[in-house]
Amino acid sequence: MESNTLFQYSVVSALMDGVASNGLPLQTLSQHGNHGLGTFRRMAGEMIIIDGQIYSMKADGSVTLISSTEQTETVTPYAMVTRFSPTITKKVKLGGKDELKDFLTNLIPRTSNNYLAFRVDGVFKSVTVRAAGPQKEKGEGLVAVCARQTVFELEPEEGGGIGGTIIGFRSPAFLQGVSVAGDHLHFITDDRKRGGHMLGFETEGEVEVQVAGMWRVELELPKDDEEFENAKLVGDNEGIKAVEG
Amino acid sequence: MESNTLFQYSVVSALMDGVASNGLPLQTLSQHGNHGLGTFRRMAGEMIIIDGQIYSMKADGSVTLISSTEQTETVTPYAMVTRFSPTITKKVKLGGKDELKDFLTNLIPRTSNNYLAFRVDGVFKSVTVRAAGPQKEKGEGLVAVCARQTVFELEPEEGGGIGGTIIGFRSPAFLQGVSVAGDHLHFITDDRKRGGHMLGFETEGEVEVQVAGMWRVELELPKDDEEFENAKLVGDNEGIKAVEG
Repeated sequence: MESNTLFQYSVVSALMDGVASNGLPLQTLSQHGNHGLGTFRRMAGEMIIIDGQIYSMKADGSVTLISSTEQTETVTPYAMVTRFSPTITKKVKLGGKDELKDFLTNLIPRTSNNYLAFRVDGVFKSVTVRAAGPQKEKGEGLVAVCARQTVFELEPEEGGGIGGTIIGFRSPAFLQGVSVAGDHLHFITDDRKRGGHMLGFETEGEVEVQVAGMWRVELELPKDDEEFENAKLVGDNEGIKAVEG
Repeated sequence: MESNTLFQYSVVSALMDGVASNGLPLQTLSQHGNHGLGTFRRMAGEMIIIDGQIYSMKADGSVTLISSTEQTETVTPYAMVTRFSPTITKKVKLGGKDELKDFLTNLIPRTSNNYLAFRVDGVFKSVTVRAAGPQKEKGEGLVAVCARQTVFELEPEEGGGIGGTIIGFRSPAFLQGVSVAGDHLHFITDDRKRGGHMLGFETEGEVEVQVAGMWRVELELPKDDEEFENAKLVGDNEGIKAVEG
């Protein structure tokens, strides 16, 4: 696949409606890119794909690399991935998600109606992540699943700071429900032992921000999946903002 | 491209917002399929792609084949196309769009959350089509353009009936704004001299209906297109239903 083409499996509205019993094998997903995020069957944890490696970050605090062998058996009911080829790289000190948002908007302007892929590498002063799932029962929606999320304030390492990487996507407002409108960030530490869906952060000094615009989207909808076929898939802007913002 | 993968250029919300000054060359579009519909720069008429041939059907009643040479210069601001490979073919007598809708739903059930491509070939007792455009001025939205549409009741040929083909897509409700939710039908006569966006019809006797489900979508958003970048792209369900239903 071409660089900076977004591949997405299923839609966020399906997770909102609790569609998470089946999915795409990670082996297939990883053929579409090396930079991504998503979740697992029954919404069991947060997925991050960094440099082609797929990690599961769970509500119990565990972070696990999914081996190539496991990738044939493990499925995702929702994921976004791209072969990331940044077109702009810049160093900056950031006070949080809003500053990152403004920085990206200025860095790559006139892109409010397309997708962005981005990555932030460096040392962070503070990082707050959450991990959610799994569903209590089949069909439980994302809002209910996230009501039981665990929030982690990552502890600085000895010597200070938290070395890690943000993997993120920005999705256009008019595609809310297909994707998560706005910025969606997952984080993992350099030692790959901690991480999750990013709620907040502050960088220690300057970090490296890389970004690319994406105008091509390959959307694969679940096929032969009764749960998806019966889903209501009503847009729930407020609900999605509340749990994925 | 694989059979029954939907390729779409831009989104209907962009047409609603009047984004139609630029677009994808038809030569590129036709690489993605042989069955499709759309419009042209400045929304100048209805496009139908049948058996790989692209026709322009205008509000003045003219129907023109776009030659291969012209396909390099002619652009579309919105089009859907697929390499159509029907999985079900059946003969049926139909009283109109609602009957076609019900027939398709029964023919290929459990597909309300994915796309369908379909085609209807045969002799029609009556056919009502419209053709709209072009925009009066740059930025004029689809609703205003369609307020000036011309409606044609096609006359039966000598010997009775109107031989022709419907090229259609069904789009899922949750993708309203990206595509036109529900059934979207364009029609052209066997002699390729009349046609347009189909408003109503009745078949003479049985016609052949062919259909295929589509679960893979390739969406290409306009790049380096200032008009698209500045578009509001607000979902306008009622507006789209009014002009494209």
